Amino acid sequence: GRVGDFSIQAWIWKVWEFAKEDSNRVKFSFKVGLAVLLVSLLILFRAPYEIFGTNIIWSILTVAIMFEYTVGATFNRGFNRALGSLLAGILAIAIAQVALSTGRVAEPIIIGISIFFIGTVTSFMKQWSSLVPYEYGFRVILFTYCLIIVSGYRMGNPIRTSMDRLYSIAIGGFVAVLVNVLVFPIWAGEQLHKELVSSFHSVADSLEECVKKYLEDEGFDHPEFASTVMDEFPDEPAYKKCKSTLNCSAKLEALALAAKWEPPHGRFRHFFYPWSEYVKVGAVLRYCAYEVMALHGVLHSEIQAPYNLRYTFQTEIQDVTSQAAELVRSLGKDIGSMTRSLKTSLLKSVHSSTERLQRTIDMHSYLLTTYCEPPDNSSKPLPKLSYTLSSTLSDLSNQLQADLESNNLEKNSNTTPQNMFSGTPPAAQAETYHETMRKQSRRLHSWPSREVSAFEEDGGFTADFLPRMKALESTATLSLATFTSLLIEFVARLDHLVEAVDQLSKMAKFKNENL
Amino acid sequence: GRVGDFSIQAWIWKVWEFAKEDSNRVKFSFKVGLAVLLVSLLILFRAPYEIFGTNIIWSILTVAIMFEYTVGATFNRGFNRALGSLLAGILAIAIAQVALSTGRVAEPIIIGISIFFIGTVTSFMKQWSSLVPYEYGFRVILFTYCLIIVSGYRMGNPIRTSMDRLYSIAIGGFVAVLVNVLVFPIWAGEQLHKELVSSFHSVADSLEECVKKYLEDEGFDHPEFASTVMDEFPDEPAYKKCKSTLNCSAKLEALALAAKWEPPHGRFRHFFYPWSEYVKVGAVLRYCAYEVMALHGVLHSEIQAPYNLRYTFQTEIQDVTSQAAELVRSLGKDIGSMTRSLKTSLLKSVHSSTERLQRTIDMHSYLLTTYCEPPDNSSKPLPKLSYTLSSTLSDLSNQLQADLESNNLEKNSNTTPQNMFSGTPPAAQAETYHETMRKQSRRLHSWPSREVSAFEEDGGFTADFLPRMKALESTATLSLATFTSLLIEFVARLDHLVEAVDQLSKMAKFKNENL
Repeated sequence: GRVGDFSIQAWIWKVWEFAKEDSNRVKFSFKVGLAVLLVSLLILFRAPYEIFGTNIIWSILTVAIMFEYTVGATFNRGFNRALGSLLAGILAIAIAQVALSTGRVAEPIIIGISIFFIGTVTSFMKQWSSLVPYEYGFRVILFTYCLIIVSGYRMGNPIRTSMDRLYSIAIGGFVAVLVNVLVFPIWAGEQLHKELVSSFHSVADSLEECVKKYLEDEGFDHPEFASTVMDEFPDEPAYKKCKSTLNCSAKLEALALAAKWEPPHGRFRHFFYPWSEYVKVGAVLRYCAYEVMALHGVLHSEIQAPYNLRYTFQTEIQDVTSQAAELVRSLGKDIGSMTRSLKTSLLKSVHSSTERLQRTIDMHSYLLTTYCEPPDNSSKPLPKLSYTLSSTLSDLSNQLQADLESNNLEKNSNTTPQNMFSGTPPAAQAETYHETMRKQSRRLHSWPSREVSAFEEDGGFTADFLPRMKALESTATLSLATFTSLLIEFVARLDHLVEAVDQLSKMAKFKNENL
Repeated sequence: GRVGDFSIQAWIWKVWEFAKEDSNRVKFSFKVGLAVLLVSLLILFRAPYEIFGTNIIWSILTVAIMFEYTVGATFNRGFNRALGSLLAGILAIAIAQVALSTGRVAEPIIIGISIFFIGTVTSFMKQWSSLVPYEYGFRVILFTYCLIIVSGYRMGNPIRTSMDRLYSIAIGGFVAVLVNVLVFPIWAGEQLHKELVSSFHSVADSLEECVKKYLEDEGFDHPEFASTVMDEFPDEPAYKKCKSTLNCSAKLEALALAAKWEPPHGRFRHFFYPWSEYVKVGAVLRYCAYEVMALHGVLHSEIQAPYNLRYTFQTEIQDVTSQAAELVRSLGKDIGSMTRSLKTSLLKSVHSSTERLQRTIDMHSYLLTTYCEPPDNSSKPLPKLSYTLSSTLSDLSNQLQADLESNNLEKNSNTTPQNMFSGTPPAAQAETYHETMRKQSRRLHSWPSREVSAFEEDGGFTADFLPRMKALESTATLSLATFTSLLIEFVARLDHLVEAVDQLSKMAKFKNENL
C-alpha cells in the first residue's frame, strides 16, 4: 500500500543518489556485466566451445575474480593470477612426472606430501610483510597446483590438463583486461590524483572551519568530548573529511601500487610517472592535518580560554588562517591542473602574518598570565608579591573592582573599539584588554570536571584557595597560547609541504606557469 | 661460495626470527597445508572419488579460497561462500527453467541477458558502503551463477550440476572450518584483546618517551622535521608503535567483525560478548594518542622553548607524565587480565599532579612572556613602556646585564638549587628562574627558518627591530606552554578513557577485584 510505495520510492531515490554521486560506480557495474557476458558467449556459441571444451568455464571464474575497479588493480591482479598459475603449472607438471615415475603405490603419497608442502610454504610466505600485496598470487598458486596435480592424477595427462586450463585462464584474463581498458577505463592514477587534490582542499576547509568555530562561538554550546559522540561532530562537515584524510594513507598506497601497473594515459603521458611521490606528498599533508586535529582538540577541550580573549586576537588569527588555507588550496590547485608555480609570495605573506600574530601575542602576553612580573624590575617585587599572597580573596576582588573602575574612566576617552586591532601603541591597547579580562575571569570553566578531593594527601603544598583558583585561570588562558602555537606549527609545516609539492612537480614534469 | 653461504644463512636466520616473533604464523601455515591435504585425499583415494566424481575439485578451490587466518574470519568467509553459492544456485535453476521453456532459439539469449544482468547488479551492490564487507559474497554469486547456468546449458540438467557443486563446496567448507577450529585455533577475539592491550602500552610508552626526550635533550640534536625523514625517528621506537596504533582502526574493526562470528571460547565465555566495545575503547585511546602525536610535534618543532626553561618545570611535567602513563598501563593491564578495578586513586593522583603543574606554570608564567605587565598597576605603565620602545637594543641589553648581576648578588644567598622545585615561596623562586631566563635568551632558535624579507610590503607596522625580536622570543617560550597544555589535555581525555574501559568491563562482565 502507501507505506510500501513510499519506502520503495525512498529506496530508489537513495540508489539514484548513490549512482549520481560517482558515475564511475555505474560504469564499473556495466563493465563487469559486459565482461562476463563476453566470456559466456564463448560457451553459448557452439564453435568456440567445441575448440576449448569444458575447461572454458575457467575463463568465467578468471573474469569474476580478476575484474577490479581500476585498470591498474586489474593488471596487478591479472599479473598475480598469470604468474601464480604459471608457477603452479610448472611445479605441478614437474612433481607429477616425478610421482608418475615412482610407480602406482608411491604416486599418491608423493602427491599428498607435495600438496601439504605447497600449502604450508605459500601460506607462510604470504605473511611476510613485503609479500603481503601478493597474497592473492599465493592463493592462486595453491589452488591451481592442487587442481592440476589432482585432476592430472585422476584423469591422466597432467600436461594436457594444465595447458587447457592455462589457455582458458588466459582467455578470461584477456577479456577482463580488454574490457577494463577499452570501455570507460577507470585509471588508478587519475583516482590517486583526484584523491590527493581533494585532501588538500579538505585540510584547508577544516582548518578554516575549526578556527571559525573557535573565534565565533561562545564556548558553551560545543558538544563535549563525550565518549559516545567521540567521532561525531554533526555541525562540522569539513572536520569529518579531514579525519578521513588521516585514515586514507592505506587507500593512497593501494592506488599508487595499482597506478604503477598502468601504461601512460590521459594527462599522465610519460613512462615511470612518479606515483610514489603522491604518497609522500600525502604523508606530509597528513602531518599538517595532525595539527588541525590538535587544533580541533583545543576547540573541544574542557579547558577553554574565555571568549573575549579569543576575540582579542581574532584579526591576527583569521589572517594567518585564511592565508595558510589559501596556500594549501593553491598547492592543491597546482597539483590538480598539473602546473608548477612559485609559491614565494603566498609563503611570504603567510609568514609575515604569522609573525604579526606572534608579535601581537607577545605584546599582550600578560593577558595570558594572571600572575605576572615585569622582567626589568625584578629586583624589587617582593613587597607586592607577599601582599598579594597574604590578602584574602575578597580583598583582592575589591581591589580589582576599584582598579577596573578607575581604568574605565581613564581609558574610554583614549581608545575606540575600531582601532583596537590596528596600529595603536601597545600601551593604550593593553588597558582595554585588561577590562575585558577582568570581566571575563568570572565565567571561566572550572577544571578538572571531576572533584579532586584528595588534594592535601600529597603534602608539600599549603592548600590555600588563592593559588588554586589562579592556576585554573592561568592555564585556561594558556589554552589560547596553545591554539596559536599549534596554528604557527601548522604554518611551519607548510614549508615542508611546499617543498614536497615542488619535488613532485619537478619529478612529474608539471608545466611551468610563471617562469 | 662464501658470500652465497653467508647470505643464505642470514636469510634463514631472518625467516627463523619471523617465525619466532609470532608462532601463530607457523601454526597457520601448517593448518592450511593440512586442510588442502585432507581435501585432496578425497580425490586421491578411490572410494570418495567414485561417489562425488570430478566435481570434487570444487572442494579444493573452496578450501584454498576460504581458509583465513582467524576462526571468525573463516566463518565469515564461509558464510559469504555458502550464502552466495546458495543464492546463485537457486537463481540459476530458476532462470534455467524459464530459459529451457522458451525453446532452442531464445534460450541462449535469455541466459546471456541474465548473466549480464547478474554481473551488473552484483557489482553495483558490492560498492554500497554497508555491503562492502560482503564483497567476496557478491563475487561468489557472480561466478557460481555463471558456472552453473553455462555448464547446465552445455551439459544439460542444471539441477544435478548445481547440486553436485554445492555438495563439494560444502565438503570443502566443512574441512576448512573443522581444521581451523580444532587444530591450534587462532581466535580473532583473542587477537583483538591482545591488540587493544598492547596499544594501551604503546601509548603509555610513547608518552613517556616523548616527554623524556623533551626534558632531556639540549634541543639541538633532534632530527628536523624534514620531508624525507618525515616518518622515521630511528631513536624513538615507542613513537613508531604509537603511530601504528593510530592506523590500526581498520585492523581492530576487521578483528571485531570476525570475532562476532566466533562461538564462546577460552576466556570469553558468554554469548554476545561485546566485541564492538573494544573498537570504541580503541577509538577513545586513539584520541589520547592524537595528543601524544601533537606532543611529539612540539618536540620536533622548529620553534623551541629554551632548554633551561623546560628544565625548570621538569619535576612537575615528569610527575604528570609518569602518573598518566601508569594510569594508561593499569587500564591496559585490567583489560588484559579481564578484571575490573576502581581507578579513583590513580585518577586522583594524576589530577592533583596536573593541578600542581598548572599551578607551577601559573606561578612562573612570567617566564613564558618577556613582555609583561603586572595586572594590578595597570594605571601607570605608560612611561616605562615608551621608554622600552624607544631604547635601542644595546641600551636594553646593557640594562639587562646590570639587572642580572645585581640579581645574582642578591639572590644567591637566598635560594639554593636544591629547594628550587619544592615548597619555596613563589617570590623567592621567581628571581632564580629569572636569571636562568636571561642567560637563556641568547641561544634561542630563530624562526621562521626561511627569510621573510618582504616584511614591510603589507604595511601597517613600523618595522623596528625590537618588537620583532621579542615576538620570536615570546612565542618560543610559549612552545613550553603548548607542550604542557597538550599534556593537560591528554590527562583530560584520560577521564573518557577510564569511562570507556569501565563501560567495557561492565558489558563484558569482567570480575570485580576490589569491590
